[in-house]
Amino acid sequence: MVDEAKTRDKFTIINELARRRGFFWKSYEIYGGVSGFVTYGFLGAKLKQNIEKKVRELFVNKLGILEIESPIIAPSKVFEASGHVDHFKEPMVECLKCKRRFRADHLLQEFAKISEVEAEKLSLKEVEEAIEKHEIRCPECGGIFDEPKYFLTMFKTTIGPYSEAIGYGRPEAAQGIFVEFRRLYEMAREKLPFGVIQIGHVLRNEISPRQGLIRSREFTIIDLEFFFDPEEPNCFLLIDFENETLRLLLAENKLRGSEEIIEVTVNEALEKGYIKVEWQAVFMALAKKLLVGLGVPAEKQRFIEKLPWEKAHYALQSFDQEIYVERWGWVEVSGHAYRTDYDLKRHMEFSGVDMRVFKEHEKPVEREQAVVKPLMAKLGPVFKEEAAKIVGLLSEADPEEVDVSIEKNGYYMLGKYKVLPEYVEITRQKVKERGRRFIPYVVEPSFGSDRMVYVALEYAYRVKDDRAILSLPRDIAPIQVGVYPLVSKDGLPGKALQVYKTLLNEGFMVEYDEAGSIGRRYARADEIGIPLGVTVDYKTLEDNTVTVRDRDSWKQVRSRIEELPQLLHKYFRWKANFEDLGKPLEG
Amino acid sequence: MVDEAKTRDKFTIINELARRRGFFWKSYEIYGGVSGFVTYGFLGAKLKQNIEKKVRELFVNKLGILEIESPIIAPSKVFEASGHVDHFKEPMVECLKCKRRFRADHLLQEFAKISEVEAEKLSLKEVEEAIEKHEIRCPECGGIFDEPKYFLTMFKTTIGPYSEAIGYGRPEAAQGIFVEFRRLYEMAREKLPFGVIQIGHVLRNEISPRQGLIRSREFTIIDLEFFFDPEEPNCFLLIDFENETLRLLLAENKLRGSEEIIEVTVNEALEKGYIKVEWQAVFMALAKKLLVGLGVPAEKQRFIEKLPWEKAHYALQSFDQEIYVERWGWVEVSGHAYRTDYDLKRHMEFSGVDMRVFKEHEKPVEREQAVVKPLMAKLGPVFKEEAAKIVGLLSEADPEEVDVSIEKNGYYMLGKYKVLPEYVEITRQKVKERGRRFIPYVVEPSFGSDRMVYVALEYAYRVKDDRAILSLPRDIAPIQVGVYPLVSKDGLPGKALQVYKTLLNEGFMVEYDEAGSIGRRYARADEIGIPLGVTVDYKTLEDNTVTVRDRDSWKQVRSRIEELPQLLHKYFRWKANFEDLGKPLEG
Repeated sequence: MVDEAKTRDKFTIINELARRRGFFWKSYEIYGGVSGFVTYGFLGAKLKQNIEKKVRELFVNKLGILEIESPIIAPSKVFEASGHVDHFKEPMVECLKCKRRFRADHLLQEFAKISEVEAEKLSLKEVEEAIEKHEIRCPECGGIFDEPKYFLTMFKTTIGPYSEAIGYGRPEAAQGIFVEFRRLYEMAREKLPFGVIQIGHVLRNEISPRQGLIRSREFTIIDLEFFFDPEEPNCFLLIDFENETLRLLLAENKLRGSEEIIEVTVNEALEKGYIKVEWQAVFMALAKKLLVGLGVPAEKQRFIEKLPWEKAHYALQSFDQEIYVERWGWVEVSGHAYRTDYDLKRHMEFSGVDMRVFKEHEKPVEREQAVVKPLMAKLGPVFKEEAAKIVGLLSEADPEEVDVSIEKNGYYMLGKYKVLPEYVEITRQKVKERGRRFIPYVVEPSFGSDRMVYVALEYAYRVKDDRAILSLPRDIAPIQVGVYPLVSKDGLPGKALQVYKTLLNEGFMVEYDEAGSIGRRYARADEIGIPLGVTVDYKTLEDNTVTVRDRDSWKQVRSRIEELPQLLHKYFRWKANFEDLGKPLEG
Repeated sequence: MVDEAKTRDKFTIINELARRRGFFWKSYEIYGGVSGFVTYGFLGAKLKQNIEKKVRELFVNKLGILEIESPIIAPSKVFEASGHVDHFKEPMVECLKCKRRFRADHLLQEFAKISEVEAEKLSLKEVEEAIEKHEIRCPECGGIFDEPKYFLTMFKTTIGPYSEAIGYGRPEAAQGIFVEFRRLYEMAREKLPFGVIQIGHVLRNEISPRQGLIRSREFTIIDLEFFFDPEEPNCFLLIDFENETLRLLLAENKLRGSEEIIEVTVNEALEKGYIKVEWQAVFMALAKKLLVGLGVPAEKQRFIEKLPWEKAHYALQSFDQEIYVERWGWVEVSGHAYRTDYDLKRHMEFSGVDMRVFKEHEKPVEREQAVVKPLMAKLGPVFKEEAAKIVGLLSEADPEEVDVSIEKNGYYMLGKYKVLPEYVEITRQKVKERGRRFIPYVVEPSFGSDRMVYVALEYAYRVKDDRAILSLPRDIAPIQVGVYPLVSKDGLPGKALQVYKTLLNEGFMVEYDEAGSIGRRYARADEIGIPLGVTVDYKTLEDNTVTVRDRDSWKQVRSRIEELPQLLHKYFRWKANFEDLGKPLEG
């Protein structure tokens, strides 16, 4: 832990600047503030929107990923099926004296120097033993802790007027995609592969959140679920990314206690089996490029493979994209989970709705196959009103699987229903198979908007001649152009307002400012990251030219007002450099 | 109630089209669906975003309203202060037999033919009497109802691991603005007037939601809070809108049972006192223009003034902007509430934080004034650890008010604290007043995104030669351009994909489609509202020209590929008509 009182590290600086200039701050300050909730002011909201816009351009516009919007509140069934009700919890201890509650694994990290990796691995019993062994007491009052319990970190509520209709605030946007898979597949015209993305608020009821934008109870997630045929896992985009390099910290190295990073191309990572599927490797390459585009150099990024006990319950392989930040070290900004068919399968089991897709063979295949005929006379009395549902489910089950399971185990588990040999008649017949039914596999890149906002700010921050500059990439800067009359008299404000309105009507995010000296206005503009300043001076009144100033180099060029809109459109689409905007002026 | 089985009205048609084409549908269908929750597919999400973008262009870009983003979950204190915990509730009855629950006022409307206006007015006691008098029984099982109770229609949860830390899902985005007023005022450089807007999900735990997008439990609100000095209520934008006409249904006419609509200009409405503040009238004119821009003709819009008992608890005057839709009649799409200083005052009382702003006089004013000196020797023993807070609050209170109240009532209510004469010493002194402190007044236009999506769809829908067309205004259409090879052979798809990529790189929302006959592809494009179709044919291979087709008129023009991006940019910015896109082709 860094002693905040002594050092003024970047985290402190960014948060202080963010509060002062209205990027973001802790919500509900007038009521003492509530940990884990952040409010974005104008500049922060716009920066966040611009980052999300960049994500949309990359995935939705360029790659044709389909964006959807689903609710934040979901009925408990959804999260029972997804496994969150069972798994989305953290060990918590309560002080017997002051009744304060703490995250047990965080206490072990802080007071027993047990690594995060080790702490996350422990069972409740082991947590209790470790607390006893290291004689950890309440950090607030020194009291003894009660035995640890699991705390479900979803926000719970009820939907409608019946208290038994439990609902949860979604901890991820992914389930809003999985539960609607049937409709989304139709939307994608019943072709694999396809991807669906959702950007929206999620809720995680952290026991004791800290770290500002890094760990909140409410934040914006960008979940992208990419569905593909596991028998055709090849990525047609691979060719565009195969030589992109990735910095990997593999699980096998972590297990040996090593922090060694290997730098490999996407192709090498796939060939050596570091990354299991092509789509995942390509999304990791895209994620790297995205963060480079937000101003984070490649060497400050890494992908760390999750260990078996660190992985979410749904993931076969999982990498976190981490960015190095001064205060907290490596911080996750995106997760890349290979979710396989876990989620769709679970929803199929819990809902009884077929989540499989049908893919036709190029030509029909003839083969011998088991045929399962349900015997209603047996099923009816046993399952009563559910018998029809079981018949339906049986017709969708793989008959070979049913046959093999009944042969081997003496029963077949149809979701939660146990099918006994006497319920069905199994024969073998020659069938012409027109195609096959299967549950698509999924790779998921998942980004945290708020963390991207934070890292973009930390990497944009620099000091020049004792002045703070936010060198945000020009396409995410909240305000694009500042328009200033040199002085607020002699008709300069009127002229400047004309320029301001012209740029406004061209769709630029423009700010007009005539308060204080031009130097102070430039300084303020630099601190909130406005890439270009347009200054109207006495010469403007004569020849309709203006000074354009670069935030980062403080260089200036002289441009004709009539050419400005076109030049600026080019500049903000990265089709022109600052030097292309006009004739250079002597510093 | 319309019998859905018999008629296929526009509501049915739009919902069916929305489901089939993936605009939106009821969420969680695989689990039987949950009333009041809607998921937007790709086309719907994009349409909604485009509508919200139009709102942003109007308010944020053009008028300089500051956008913010605050959390959905708030601590209970916020909604105690705002009055929602007391007022945001509906009368509910439970059937004693089947235990089903219903909104009592809706039952009275349906089964006792009591008008909405009358039903909303009734107290719980009166509701009970009306149910008895009209012998209303459970519509599901015929059972008798228990006595009516109020049901709080906010989603309740707990924040963090302590069950006493009650939180609510916000039913409006406005409070996220009010509680942060101090920071927002700084952001606005401490000048009035200024406005703050927030677009985001809100939660209202309706007892029995129906009506699809019209009444949901989770939806997107656009709350704009505009702060001004009540002593300077003039709107500098009035000059641009004074002759805009508004169709008003006034409360005084409603009270007489009349539905008479008067059409007046903004200026007349203000002069005759129909609308109390200029800013509100201007925002109403803007709201009208916005909806016209979404495709709703002015004559299908009206502003209906709320009656005293219909108004929200915070509103001095309130108009609903209503749109006529086929199934439901007049439906609210925006509310225009004159919230005065209600919210800031309440938060000041509940938090003890000064929400007033200071405005300097042009020159200081000298006058005699009461000076209130708190007597700690008296306050201390009575209020203990709260005494300091009271001294602080007292220093912020208007001393004249304190003086007058103590004189008149024998005490002064300082928020929830009662200040008795013996706690303070009041003298009269000559003071130079540099300026004045006051709580800004607020007018609030508040839009429902989802309802705007619905009305845009209903008004866009038409049938031509038995084919459905969604004539969405070109700037909100989810997909802007469809690109089609005439046939999928002879190199046409390759050429079409080139055109597709060119337009994609220019930032257009483009779809490439080569499936089925060109006629079928046009029909599909018309049904999802793609304004322009670009078709690549054999002639394209010779001379690099393409056919451009208009969704609404089905007219076609021939354009050069190289000119297309520039032409389309103009077209989508309303700077060119369809006819300007090329040479007309014979039908």
